[in-house]
Amino acid sequence: MSKPSHYGVVLYPGFQLLDVAGPLDCLNLLSLNDDIKLSILSSTLDPVQTLPKSSFSQSMVPTHTFDTAPEDIEVLLVPGGLGAREESNIQPAIDYVRKVYPRLQYLITVCTGSAVVAKAGVLDGVRATSNKAAFEWVRSVRPQVKWEKKARWVVDGNIWTSSGISAGMDVTYAYVGKLYGEEVAQNIADRSEYMRNKDPSFDPFADMY
Amino acid sequence: MSKPSHYGVVLYPGFQLLDVAGPLDCLNLLSLNDDIKLSILSSTLDPVQTLPKSSFSQSMVPTHTFDTAPEDIEVLLVPGGLGAREESNIQPAIDYVRKVYPRLQYLITVCTGSAVVAKAGVLDGVRATSNKAAFEWVRSVRPQVKWEKKARWVVDGNIWTSSGISAGMDVTYAYVGKLYGEEVAQNIADRSEYMRNKDPSFDPFADMY
Repeated sequence: MSKPSHYGVVLYPGFQLLDVAGPLDCLNLLSLNDDIKLSILSSTLDPVQTLPKSSFSQSMVPTHTFDTAPEDIEVLLVPGGLGAREESNIQPAIDYVRKVYPRLQYLITVCTGSAVVAKAGVLDGVRATSNKAAFEWVRSVRPQVKWEKKARWVVDGNIWTSSGISAGMDVTYAYVGKLYGEEVAQNIADRSEYMRNKDPSFDPFADMY
Repeated sequence: MSKPSHYGVVLYPGFQLLDVAGPLDCLNLLSLNDDIKLSILSSTLDPVQTLPKSSFSQSMVPTHTFDTAPEDIEVLLVPGGLGAREESNIQPAIDYVRKVYPRLQYLITVCTGSAVVAKAGVLDGVRATSNKAAFEWVRSVRPQVKWEKKARWVVDGNIWTSSGISAGMDVTYAYVGKLYGEEVAQNIADRSEYMRNKDPSFDPFADMY
């Protein structure tokens, strides 16, 4: 299987920082030895805030808009976040996911990022998971998805959906293990001093809500 | 003990994204219920890159320069990163830490962020830890520090230093537990679906290098 070289990540107002940074930091370490590149996409080139209107917020800078996104992106990462609850924040991302999914090699979601891609229709009939505290809302967003509550992450075809926020790290390590080799993934986790959950069925948060 | 309300984070070229985002995302969730604010500091207001010159990089946007930083910042977070190996990247951060440490309530470091603050002289005679893969380099940077290799994090006085990259999350949860209450910290970890290491002496990475 060929290793993807071009990654994209979607940002929208109110994205959850760790949904983006957990997966990307694993890939940051991967990039030190593997020739991969990243495009950061949003509706405009303005910095995108994690908590707009809050006095506690951070912003990341897009490299492209959805309209000017490179066409050779092979893997797309879609984060969740409080902003995903408002349609106006995520409509451009939904439209972009609907348009590009057919040409992606892999689609990875974290937390309520699965609700964003579900709204694009690409999860219909697909097994998927999401944040546990938000699960009933996510399920209601698109009942046509085969939602699985008790799962750290779910792989169905080329779509990897993960559970809440921190689960984005485990799904990314699992993805890197599959695509680049388990030894590569574990080496990165060790350098990051990250204690992985390697079992997608181990989900201590599923029964909390 | 009064709860701090103003947090600052230091950015420099080549900071490790997760060193910043792990702690901040815990605080992002804290900020939904606690009235805290964040200032993001760097030498200029330009976006700061995680991997300058790389095709796989992200950037975060400072809110203030070190020269214009608000004087009422009570807690300062200092990340590590590959950029910390080059003096020119971190000299402005070192100077800032040296200047403001006397008026801080708490100083928190992640990974080789402890080398940055050690160079400012504020760790002399203080027990501290750092990234395990980089430990010998960190130790050589400032032998006057009481470096402790086997530790997920170390608290000495008002200085909380943590081990590599992902350890920044555990030290932040421990800090939030101490300052805002353990129930608050665990509630945030559950919402983030993060499996904490709550034992500062449990460090499976210390013996790897």
